[in-house]
Amino acid sequence: MPPRSHEMQVYGGIKLYAGTASPELAQKIADHLSEELCGRDIVLFPNDNLFVKLHGSVRGQDVYVIQTTSAPVQRNLMELLIMLQTLRMDSAARITAVIPYLCYGRSDKKDQPRIPITSRLVADMIEVAGADRYMTLDPHAGQVQGFFSIPGDVLTASHLITDYINQNIRAGLKDPVVVTVDLGYAKKGRNIAADINVPIAFIEKRRAANDANAEALTIIGSVKDRDVILVDDEIDTGGSAAQAVHLVKDSGARRMYVVFIHPVFSANAAERLAALQVTEFITTDSVPIPPEKRALLGNRLTVLSVSSLLGEVIRRAHEGRSVGEMFNE
Amino acid sequence: MPPRSHEMQVYGGIKLYAGTASPELAQKIADHLSEELCGRDIVLFPNDNLFVKLHGSVRGQDVYVIQTTSAPVQRNLMELLIMLQTLRMDSAARITAVIPYLCYGRSDKKDQPRIPITSRLVADMIEVAGADRYMTLDPHAGQVQGFFSIPGDVLTASHLITDYINQNIRAGLKDPVVVTVDLGYAKKGRNIAADINVPIAFIEKRRAANDANAEALTIIGSVKDRDVILVDDEIDTGGSAAQAVHLVKDSGARRMYVVFIHPVFSANAAERLAALQVTEFITTDSVPIPPEKRALLGNRLTVLSVSSLLGEVIRRAHEGRSVGEMFNE
Amino acid sequence: MPPRSHEMQVYGGIKLYAGTASPELAQKIADHLSEELCGRDIVLFPNDNLFVKLHGSVRGQDVYVIQTTSAPVQRNLMELLIMLQTLRMDSAARITAVIPYLCYGRSDKKDQPRIPITSRLVADMIEVAGADRYMTLDPHAGQVQGFFSIPGDVLTASHLITDYINQNIRAGLKDPVVVTVDLGYAKKGRNIAADINVPIAFIEKRRAANDANAEALTIIGSVKDRDVILVDDEIDTGGSAAQAVHLVKDSGARRMYVVFIHPVFSANAAERLAALQVTEFITTDSVPIPPEKRALLGNRLTVLSVSSLLGEVIRRAHEGRSVGEMFNE
Amino acid sequence: MPPRSHEMQVYGGIKLYAGTASPELAQKIADHLSEELCGRDIVLFPNDNLFVKLHGSVRGQDVYVIQTTSAPVQRNLMELLIMLQTLRMDSAARITAVIPYLCYGRSDKKDQPRIPITSRLVADMIEVAGADRYMTLDPHAGQVQGFFSIPGDVLTASHLITDYINQNIRAGLKDPVVVTVDLGYAKKGRNIAADINVPIAFIEKRRAANDANAEALTIIGSVKDRDVILVDDEIDTGGSAAQAVHLVKDSGARRMYVVFIHPVFSANAAERLAALQVTEFITTDSVPIPPEKRALLGNRLTVLSVSSLLGEVIRRAHEGRSVGEMFNE
Amino acid sequence: MPPRSHEMQVYGGIKLYAGTASPELAQKIADHLSEELCGRDIVLFPNDNLFVKLHGSVRGQDVYVIQTTSAPVQRNLMELLIMLQTLRMDSAARITAVIPYLCYGRSDKKDQPRIPITSRLVADMIEVAGADRYMTLDPHAGQVQGFFSIPGDVLTASHLITDYINQNIRAGLKDPVVVTVDLGYAKKGRNIAADINVPIAFIEKRRAANDANAEALTIIGSVKDRDVILVDDEIDTGGSAAQAVHLVKDSGARRMYVVFIHPVFSANAAERLAALQVTEFITTDSVPIPPEKRALLGNRLTVLSVSSLLGEVIRRAHEGRSVGEMFNE
Amino acid sequence: MPPRSHEMQVYGGIKLYAGTASPELAQKIADHLSEELCGRDIVLFPNDNLFVKLHGSVRGQDVYVIQTTSAPVQRNLMELLIMLQTLRMDSAARITAVIPYLCYGRSDKKDQPRIPITSRLVADMIEVAGADRYMTLDPHAGQVQGFFSIPGDVLTASHLITDYINQNIRAGLKDPVVVTVDLGYAKKGRNIAADINVPIAFIEKRRAANDANAEALTIIGSVKDRDVILVDDEIDTGGSAAQAVHLVKDSGARRMYVVFIHPVFSANAAERLAALQVTEFITTDSVPIPPEKRALLGNRLTVLSVSSLLGEVIRRAHEGRSVGEMFNE
Repeated sequence: MPPRSHEMQVYGGIKLYAGTASPELAQKIADHLSEELCGRDIVLFPNDNLFVKLHGSVRGQDVYVIQTTSAPVQRNLMELLIMLQTLRMDSAARITAVIPYLCYGRSDKKDQPRIPITSRLVADMIEVAGADRYMTLDPHAGQVQGFFSIPGDVLTASHLITDYINQNIRAGLKDPVVVTVDLGYAKKGRNIAADINVPIAFIEKRRAANDANAEALTIIGSVKDRDVILVDDEIDTGGSAAQAVHLVKDSGARRMYVVFIHPVFSANAAERLAALQVTEFITTDSVPIPPEKRALLGNRLTVLSVSSLLGEVIRRAHEGRSVGEMFNE
Repeated sequence: MPPRSHEMQVYGGIKLYAGTASPELAQKIADHLSEELCGRDIVLFPNDNLFVKLHGSVRGQDVYVIQTTSAPVQRNLMELLIMLQTLRMDSAARITAVIPYLCYGRSDKKDQPRIPITSRLVADMIEVAGADRYMTLDPHAGQVQGFFSIPGDVLTASHLITDYINQNIRAGLKDPVVVTVDLGYAKKGRNIAADINVPIAFIEKRRAANDANAEALTIIGSVKDRDVILVDDEIDTGGSAAQAVHLVKDSGARRMYVVFIHPVFSANAAERLAALQVTEFITTDSVPIPPEKRALLGNRLTVLSVSSLLGEVIRRAHEGRSVGEMFNE
Repeated sequence: MPPRSHEMQVYGGIKLYAGTASPELAQKIADHLSEELCGRDIVLFPNDNLFVKLHGSVRGQDVYVIQTTSAPVQRNLMELLIMLQTLRMDSAARITAVIPYLCYGRSDKKDQPRIPITSRLVADMIEVAGADRYMTLDPHAGQVQGFFSIPGDVLTASHLITDYINQNIRAGLKDPVVVTVDLGYAKKGRNIAADINVPIAFIEKRRAANDANAEALTIIGSVKDRDVILVDDEIDTGGSAAQAVHLVKDSGARRMYVVFIHPVFSANAAERLAALQVTEFITTDSVPIPPEKRALLGNRLTVLSVSSLLGEVIRRAHEGRSVGEMFNE
Repeated sequence: MPPRSHEMQVYGGIKLYAGTASPELAQKIADHLSEELCGRDIVLFPNDNLFVKLHGSVRGQDVYVIQTTSAPVQRNLMELLIMLQTLRMDSAARITAVIPYLCYGRSDKKDQPRIPITSRLVADMIEVAGADRYMTLDPHAGQVQGFFSIPGDVLTASHLITDYINQNIRAGLKDPVVVTVDLGYAKKGRNIAADINVPIAFIEKRRAANDANAEALTIIGSVKDRDVILVDDEIDTGGSAAQAVHLVKDSGARRMYVVFIHPVFSANAAERLAALQVTEFITTDSVPIPPEKRALLGNRLTVLSVSSLLGEVIRRAHEGRSVGEMFNE
Repeated sequence: MPPRSHEMQVYGGIKLYAGTASPELAQKIADHLSEELCGRDIVLFPNDNLFVKLHGSVRGQDVYVIQTTSAPVQRNLMELLIMLQTLRMDSAARITAVIPYLCYGRSDKKDQPRIPITSRLVADMIEVAGADRYMTLDPHAGQVQGFFSIPGDVLTASHLITDYINQNIRAGLKDPVVVTVDLGYAKKGRNIAADINVPIAFIEKRRAANDANAEALTIIGSVKDRDVILVDDEIDTGGSAAQAVHLVKDSGARRMYVVFIHPVFSANAAERLAALQVTEFITTDSVPIPPEKRALLGNRLTVLSVSSLLGEVIRRAHEGRSVGEMFNE
Repeated sequence: MPPRSHEMQVYGGIKLYAGTASPELAQKIADHLSEELCGRDIVLFPNDNLFVKLHGSVRGQDVYVIQTTSAPVQRNLMELLIMLQTLRMDSAARITAVIPYLCYGRSDKKDQPRIPITSRLVADMIEVAGADRYMTLDPHAGQVQGFFSIPGDVLTASHLITDYINQNIRAGLKDPVVVTVDLGYAKKGRNIAADINVPIAFIEKRRAANDANAEALTIIGSVKDRDVILVDDEIDTGGSAAQAVHLVKDSGARRMYVVFIHPVFSANAAERLAALQVTEFITTDSVPIPPEKRALLGNRLTVLSVSSLLGEVIRRAHEGRSVGEMFNE
């Protein structure tokens, strides 16, 4: 091992722990870092209580807990919290929660009275459990970073996706246009459009004037005779995406690509997507996709791994080196 | 405006909210107080995110959230936390979490290294979510009260049980003895024994010297030709209770009664209990027992309701009156 | 025992204090509530230190401090903080910071590394100074509510504006369309459009591919031969609005209306707006507009007062009554 | 009691508790308020552990704990802290620590490295134990109020003393001068001098240049042929006061009066004072003086009671009325 | 000095400070570590205020403060707290409170209303004073670890004792049985019994039915004609131990051994023990035993030193190595 | 680079950042340390919002932010706070706020009711923004150190001044006396007098008995025919100093020197001083003096730089070495 320079903060070695939510991604991150995942027991007792036991000492170490918080959300979150507390009580030097997909991101403001901001609650829980830092990818709103009092690395995987498009798809597109599934994604959709240098259009949902339960969808901007890249931050049940695809198709679009960071794939989302006239679905492994859902989409589904991105940021965080320079910032 | 009594703290009216974990008990508490349960939506979205919406304003009110935290533990706990945060953000004057059965109570100390104290974590989560106070019944260890920074009413339902025994069973017992299922319950078992004025004996579990996985059980004290009241704070899978019943029976005991505060009834606990030679099982409704499990035990199962106890404490907490005097303390 | 008034939380009387930032609005709020503004000295010493002295006791009272945080931002914010601390140390029962315009709202996320989230810092400062609650209008992002740990009433004045349009302007518009000045306001712009039942279009700004400093503006949606209502949350220097008006006009729009909640009017914003071909500017008094700036816009400027809205919410907060029902929620 | 107006904050009734440090003062405060001291047990177990048990419920009440923190300092402080925690855990509505003499006041800054600021530590301990507010008299430095995060009433008993002097002594004084025992009391000494309208002089202590352990004392200002009122905030061992009296006498002073707020009277302070040529010692009962020490000073000692002052402030704090107006402020 | 490995956390050097409570143990710990105790002044002023001054800089160092909190409890605790604050203000990198005997351990739950949980208060005080970590031995209840928010090493000295028994006594015992002095120690007593492979019995105390002040003692389990090892966590006044010895002897026991971790020895405990028919008393030096008390028990008293245990844990904590592996865990 | 010793705490390298308040002093500190000031943008937007962007990564570094908080006070303070938050969010290892002149130091106690302790508020703001430590020079009251919960180095520049006097002026003085401008500076003035071995006198201000607005000034001690060194901690408007100089001169003093740590120079202070019959003004560069003000005082003004003092303390703080030994403490 080379001598450490005066420029680095020194904690003990990297220790990587993984919850049960995304073992494959955790292993890939470990591989990227040429580290082993540390041994731990995670047991769900018959009374539905979770129990954690670490196999080795973490005293004075720089620990990273990799746990995505997709479904089962409550269990995955609780696992993360219990691991954080165990590490804190066992005197880890620094604890970083690595959460590729951060749950409850859409509960980020009170757009009606008497509802929670669960995203803030989740941040509070992660802090009170003992995290010193956190990492996450593409939260629903960038403001989530302000919900935490601890520092964090809030990263985006959109470069993975736009690089993929530029290298594999862009050249073959005819009159392409990026379309956002709703107006809440307008600004981030614009960033994607700019990165691949195509114009943008939007789908607006509005409650119908004469029927409180009906929604009218409108395309603002032009899609006719164009190849369309539909973008959103996640696919949940796939309902909005399906509506959007139909609308865009009915409006005269040519080929369709559907791009989203987080493949949440609730309910029968995979079935819904499989039924759509879409050339390619492009997403990441921030949320694990069960094999049977993957199979439904076959080779129309491209999953780009965030493991190198997260692994590299973990390395730089550990060594006290700039993360920004990974992005030429 | 009428003159207010000088002796009371004044918050707004009592508002009772219930999570989805124990609707019957919540309704009974409301009935005891002649109050309605307040309307709220609790929705589990397809992506496994919970959502809460209160139907009416809680501004300036004295709110009690009734939610037991038996299985599904993580979901019930998260529901509670989200309700607490919603109430806090909506400016309730005071928020009390009423948790008849407090989960993770057995994870209360680090009796081996690298394990959590999840019970403390749960206390921290309840506080960070926004509870001003809490109420609970018979936690596994009384020290749990020291895990909270907020004040709480930590109550016992053991008087309900010993009153029941004294009124219905005690007279008919022959040479009765109380037996605790393990040594951890020795001191509380003694209190129950004293309340019904019978001697006590204990079951000791010890790892066998020559086989790390085997356990040897010993009875310390005398059970031969006696009616036995086996006591514990909860029945989880029923395994320990079943072992204990067999051991006591094999040691010459006569009739058996099994007494426990919390009917957790994990896995096939009800089946296990049903198969035992036990005259009567006595417990409370701190945890709801599904009808099919109740049916297995038939009229051998006596469930004493904690609703009047909790209801009365809520009333006194609201009115700023002594709770201790309920117990002649 | 006499009956207690059941429905209200009781603090002492309302006490209204105002900083020096918006004396007119503060007086209007007081008038709405039929209360006096409490006396206080606010002195700026020659060494640029601010000093506050309250004229009367606030012990046990329910205090509201009205202070907008427009320019001079640092001074107005510090005044607010010092008043909050003084009230806390002098044992006010409850302290609410009423901040019609909350500064640093656009610094709400780290969209590049090594920059602050000053909006969170401001929230932290308000809490540490002693506020128990806060009220504000139309923050740049709704997520700001999650930056606070204390409860707050985050209100919108957009109903004031859409009511005004519906009652005074809507009928005379020909083929109207709402246009948002940038994509970040897309979703809120849609809400305004829906409230006045007109379609929507957007202006997209994108960095030009061949020149890092140049920006290209595009209209997405249709404005030709339409009356246009340009919407944004605030007018700062007026640069974006002016660009937008020119672009929309050049694209064939008919009459122009410019609508914004907060008249920040930095630099020569008023001059810039005055030079535009705009029929009417519609805004609120969340930020005071100096008479000389008002004069520049003459009767083309309509300023709707937020005083009744804030006054009514203060009353309901004090009395422990629902705020939501003001909005039929 | 008259009906309270809508203008007051309402807690439950006043509950007065006293530690064991100053039972007479506590009783006088209770008498002033026409209240009883509440029953409590305070036991010192053989293992030197303190134990507290309250006799009645404090739920929802407005509780005042009267405990001075003179010697035995550690015991008196711990008693106070344990009482505060007990009250908090038993759900008192508001808890005020009434500490006539606040210990460790002279450890208020680091005037050399590697020493504590114990006064801040004491403030932290009082807060963490559960006090919502505090009251104290004439702390060594007014800045101590900034050591607390909770609000407090920091009062002075100097008016009691200057009123006494003006009414009983002032007229008979010949060419009086106030002299402060050291320079640290210069500013407060000036305030006393101004209240009784006499000039001021100071005693300066300086380490002798040629002997690190020797101190040279100098009088700055004129005392010759004057009646001297020597002032300090407390008499500890009486050493400084004795030095001062000798110096002033040797400098030609006539009659001597010695005035101090807190009669700490450590070691043989009473003997030392008794031996001095002093006409009258004037102090308060913020610290109890044991009868044998009182006897040594006989009728030269005047003890003014702070009970009405503290009692009146408690009443006003409870009723949410101004304390400042007691002092025409 | 060897190069540091990548696996360790780096703070400055170990700095050991000792309060005045247990100088011998502190010196032994220092000897074990081949370190000097750092110089410091601890002064008790005549006014009963404690003062601390460190002789050297602790900036950036890894500091351990050794202070047991036996009698004088309040003084020893305050000394510890003041040292902690001094170290924190002087910028120590990490501060660990090493407290062989942690006071107020028996005040760990509210088993009656209106009493404190002083053990939690003590934890809060240690944290607020500035400790980053703590170490202690055999607290009365393991749950105490959950009272702290900071990490700690909660160790047991019971292995020292059982190793001693196994090596020196076990072989000579005839039909040995472990007896616990009360039921609260049942579970830990069982662990000791298991470690030396002997059966267990218990003494039950129960309030007599007809006399509120009388207590009836019963042995549960068999002691007749057996060598008895009476166990408890501490000897306070020795009253319970004396009762137990008499009862066990009267029940036909043969030789008696009395084993306890903490020799608190309040009041005339040593005299009481000396009068008992006990072969050997086995304890540790977690609490210093004054020579005159030691003399009373002569060579019947065996004191095992915890210095190597604590010293080794300090070394491992400093070097970031596992503590668990000391116990084959 | 030499190997680091085992005795030091290791953070990353020193990173020095400066706000805009005192660029010259910041550069001198950097020069002393042979370090560069790190690049950063500090922009004041037209809407009076401040914006900060750091040019390079601070991850894991030991960062010092140099920012004095003289006028414009609010802006300078806010700049500091925003820089602190940015550094914290960007994962600096340790952040020290270096504040040569700490604003609001005179608002340190409530010497009348209903006023703030703004100095405590400022401490709270610095902590909540993210500072781990702070450094400052000669705060108005040493107790300010107790307002912070974080450790700090509170230094004095008075040695710089007394060394200068001893080396350059002392020998030429005839019958010198130190005079403090008011009684609040009596104790620190005495320290200065002792360091240069001259006697001391005081100026007392007292409100005139018959005119609430008039103040009477008295000299206590002797100045006639003496060289006078007038001392204070800062010159604000220069009003008090001017009064003092006139009074001392009128009382027969010979040459005058005016000494003060912080050249705040509000309003027309420089003009006022320039008009006085003073031989030399001696101060430091803790506050930058604009060239036009410097010019007014010409070579009568001596400015001693605190850069070496601050630089050396930064170096020692970084390296974990004693600061006290710089002062032979």
